[in-house]
Amino acid sequence: MDNKSLISISDLNKDEILALLQRAQYFEQNPNSHLLQGKVVATLFFEPSTRTRLSFETAVNRLGGRVIGFSDAKTSSQSKGETLKDTIMMVSNYADLIVMRHYLEGAARYASEIAPIPIINAGDGANQHPSQTMLDLYSIYKTQGRLTDLTITMVGDLKYGRTVHSLLEAMHYFNPTFNFVACDELKMPEQYKQFCRGKGIAYQETRDFSEEIINQTDILYMTRVQRERFSDIMEYERVKNLYNLHAAMLQGCRPNLKVLHPLPRITEISQDVDDTPQAYYFEQARNGLYARQAIICRALGIDPLL
Amino acid sequence: MDNKSLISISDLNKDEILALLQRAQYFEQNPNSHLLQGKVVATLFFEPSTRTRLSFETAVNRLGGRVIGFSDAKTSSQSKGETLKDTIMMVSNYADLIVMRHYLEGAARYASEIAPIPIINAGDGANQHPSQTMLDLYSIYKTQGRLTDLTITMVGDLKYGRTVHSLLEAMHYFNPTFNFVACDELKMPEQYKQFCRGKGIAYQETRDFSEEIINQTDILYMTRVQRERFSDIMEYERVKNLYNLHAAMLQGCRPNLKVLHPLPRITEISQDVDDTPQAYYFEQARNGLYARQAIICRALGIDPLL
Amino acid sequence: MDNKSLISISDLNKDEILALLQRAQYFEQNPNSHLLQGKVVATLFFEPSTRTRLSFETAVNRLGGRVIGFSDAKTSSQSKGETLKDTIMMVSNYADLIVMRHYLEGAARYASEIAPIPIINAGDGANQHPSQTMLDLYSIYKTQGRLTDLTITMVGDLKYGRTVHSLLEAMHYFNPTFNFVACDELKMPEQYKQFCRGKGIAYQETRDFSEEIINQTDILYMTRVQRERFSDIMEYERVKNLYNLHAAMLQGCRPNLKVLHPLPRITEISQDVDDTPQAYYFEQARNGLYARQAIICRALGIDPLL
Repeated sequence: MDNKSLISISDLNKDEILALLQRAQYFEQNPNSHLLQGKVVATLFFEPSTRTRLSFETAVNRLGGRVIGFSDAKTSSQSKGETLKDTIMMVSNYADLIVMRHYLEGAARYASEIAPIPIINAGDGANQHPSQTMLDLYSIYKTQGRLTDLTITMVGDLKYGRTVHSLLEAMHYFNPTFNFVACDELKMPEQYKQFCRGKGIAYQETRDFSEEIINQTDILYMTRVQRERFSDIMEYERVKNLYNLHAAMLQGCRPNLKVLHPLPRITEISQDVDDTPQAYYFEQARNGLYARQAIICRALGIDPLL
Repeated sequence: MDNKSLISISDLNKDEILALLQRAQYFEQNPNSHLLQGKVVATLFFEPSTRTRLSFETAVNRLGGRVIGFSDAKTSSQSKGETLKDTIMMVSNYADLIVMRHYLEGAARYASEIAPIPIINAGDGANQHPSQTMLDLYSIYKTQGRLTDLTITMVGDLKYGRTVHSLLEAMHYFNPTFNFVACDELKMPEQYKQFCRGKGIAYQETRDFSEEIINQTDILYMTRVQRERFSDIMEYERVKNLYNLHAAMLQGCRPNLKVLHPLPRITEISQDVDDTPQAYYFEQARNGLYARQAIICRALGIDPLL
Repeated sequence: MDNKSLISISDLNKDEILALLQRAQYFEQNPNSHLLQGKVVATLFFEPSTRTRLSFETAVNRLGGRVIGFSDAKTSSQSKGETLKDTIMMVSNYADLIVMRHYLEGAARYASEIAPIPIINAGDGANQHPSQTMLDLYSIYKTQGRLTDLTITMVGDLKYGRTVHSLLEAMHYFNPTFNFVACDELKMPEQYKQFCRGKGIAYQETRDFSEEIINQTDILYMTRVQRERFSDIMEYERVKNLYNLHAAMLQGCRPNLKVLHPLPRITEISQDVDDTPQAYYFEQARNGLYARQAIICRALGIDPLL
C-alpha cells in the first residue's frame, strides 16, 4: 500500500494525527491557495454521498487543483462489468490522487494495494471513513482546546455506526472517558469494549439517555438510529424516540459541551437544538473542509507548513 | 434574507435592473476574467435543468471561479431524508454562493432566509426564475436599443408560464404595451391583468394568433403549450397547433421584430423560422451567460465597473 | 463542417495523423500547461462512457481549460423533447468546443454541420471514435518505434468492433499486414477486406487464435466478444472462450509484441497477462490523455509547437 494513502484511521499514529490537525488549523486560516496547481484529483463515488463529495471537491478547488470523477456508479464503466482493479488502473492514468467511496468493505484498501497513485478512503461500506474521524477530532480539539481527558458520550446506533467506532479508536491516544448510550439491539460491540479495557479506557454503558449522563459530558456525539438496522420493526418503533436530543435536555450541561453529529440528521436532534450554543454539527461539517485539505496534501506529499 | 440574494425579479427596483443590464453589457465585451478567483459556487439542482445549469456553470468558470454541486436530487443527501435547511447549511460551509433550482415554490426564498451566504434562485417550481427575466430584458434592450415604449406579444401558455409573468412584472417600469395571445384554458391570470391596469399598462387579449397582431409587435415572446397543463386531452389536441409560429407569418412584421423563447422549444416555433432575421432565441440563450455573470457578481458584492 | 472538428478518423490524411502524433508526444512530456486558459469545453455524453469522459476532462483540465457538461442524457433537456440541433446551438453559446458522445450513428457529423464551434466525436453509436484510433496509433508508434511495416493481429469481435475498423482504415498509410482472428458470426466485414485489397494490404483470416499467429505478431489487438451480438446464445456459449488471451500463449512471442485493448476488458484477457511485459492496455489508456490533448488543441487552432 502506498504509505501516503489514507484508508483507515488506524493507519495513523498519534504524531500523524496531531500533524494533520495542525495542518487543518493552518487551512482554516488559509483555505485558498495554489498548492495543488497542476494536480488532478479523481472523486470516484461508487455510491452517492453528496456531503462527502462536495466537501472533498471544495477542498481540491480551494487548493487550486482540478476535479474529475463520477458521483454514482450507475454511470461508470462498472456497469459494463469492468473490475474495480481495471477502473482504478484506468483512473490512475489520469489523476494524481483518487478519493473513493465504495459500498463494499475493503474496496479502498484493495485499491490502495494496486494503484500507482495514493488513495483516500471516503467510506467503504460500514467499515472506515477516516476523513470523518479527522474532522471529528479537529472539531473536538477546536471546541475543547485539547483532546486529552475528555468525557465523550456516544448516543444512538453504536453497533453499526462507522463513525463512533473510528472515533473511539482514534481517541485512545488521549485518555478519554466514554459513555455508550444505546438500546440492546444497537449496543457498542464487544470488540470495542474489549479495546477500551485493553487500553485502560474507562467507559460505562447505559440504555437511558438521561440528563445525568449529559451533565457529565464534554462531547455529545449523536448518531442516526436507522429503521433498516432492525429485524423487528416493532422494536424499532419502541426505541426510535428514546435517543432524540431536545434543547431542554441541555439546560444543566457543562458550559463547554458541544453536540456533534456526522450528518445527515433526521429526527435524532430536534430543530430546537440548532439555536443552542451547544449545537456544533454544522460547524463540524465545515471543519471537514480543512481536515480534508490536510489529508489531500499529505497524500500528495505537500506540506503547507514547509 | 441576505440582500445580495436574488430570489424574485420583484426584489429588484428599476435602478438595480438597469445596473445589472449595464454589467451584462460589460461581460458581453469581457466574458473571461479572474473576478471570481478563489470563489466556489455551488449549483444545487434538486430537479434537472441542463440549460440553466450549464449557463450558470459557464458564467462561473469564465469568471475564474470554481463550481461544485449536483445536477439531480436523486444523488443528494435529500434521498436520505435530510431537510432542505440542513442541506443548505451544509453547502454554506463549502461555497461562497449557492445557485439553486428546486421543484417546490418558495424553496429559494426559504433558503435565502436561513443561509449565511447569498442564494440565486434558478427556478423554484412554477414560481420565479429571475435570471431568465434578466436575460429576456437584456435581449430586448440589445435588439431594440431601448426598453421603453415597446409592444410585446406573449403567445402560448400565459397561465402557467413563469417567464411571461416575471417579464410582465419587470417591464412595468418601461411603459410597455402587451398582447396576450392564448386559448381560454391558458389565459393570462386575472391578477396580472389587474397588475397592468393598476400600473396603467395597456394590454389586449385575444384567442387568435393573427398576423395583424404580429405586425404591431416589437417583441414576439413564444412559450410552450404543454400537454400536462390540460385536464381535457381533447382540448389540448384542439389548441396545440393554434400557437405555432411559421416563417410565413413574419412576412409583414416590423423590421425590428425579434422572436424570443425561453427554450427548450418543441413545435411552437417551426424550424423554418430559425433562418429568418427575426429568430433570436439562440442569441437570447447566449445573453443568459452575460446576465448571469452580472447576477453572480452582484450576489458576491463584486462590481466589474469599479 | 468546421474543418477543425474531428468526426471520423478518415477526416485526417497521413500528414494530419503524423502531426497529431507529434503533438501527443509533446504533451506526454508536458501534460500540464495554460494553453486552454479562458476556454470552456463542453462534454456532452448522451450515453454514459466514464472512461472516455474522464480522459477528455483530464486533458482539458491539465491544459488549464474549464469543463461543463453532462454525463448522461437522462438529466439533459433532451428529456423535455428538445432536438439535438437545439441542444447543440444552446451549448455553442457557452462553450468554445464540444466533445460529444451519442448513441446514434451520424449524430456527431450532423452536430458539426450546424454548430458554430468545433465538435470532437467521442463515439457515435457503432460508427466512429477517432480519439480512440489516435491513441491506438500513438501506442503502436511508441512501443514499436514506427508505424510502418507492422503485423497487427485483431482478435474477437471484428464485425461490430468500431475500434478495429477505424484502426484498419488509419493504418493503410503505413503498409501493415493484418491477421483477422474471429468466429464466423463476428468476422471482419467484406467491405474492410475489400478496402485492404484495394490498398494492396496483405491480410489473412482465421477462426483459430493460435500461438502460431501470435508468434508472427507485432501488435495483438484484443476486443470484447459481447453476448448481445449473438442471435443464438448457444453459439455465444460455444465461442466466447475461444478468443481469450492467457499469459502462457505469449511465451514464444516476438520481444516487441504488445497487447492492446480499447477497454473495458471483461474475460478476453486473463488477469495473468497483466504482469507480462507484453501487457500494454493500461498504458494505452494513458496515451489517450496525450492524444486527446493534441486533438483538443487542433480543434481550437492551438499548436503547442509554435
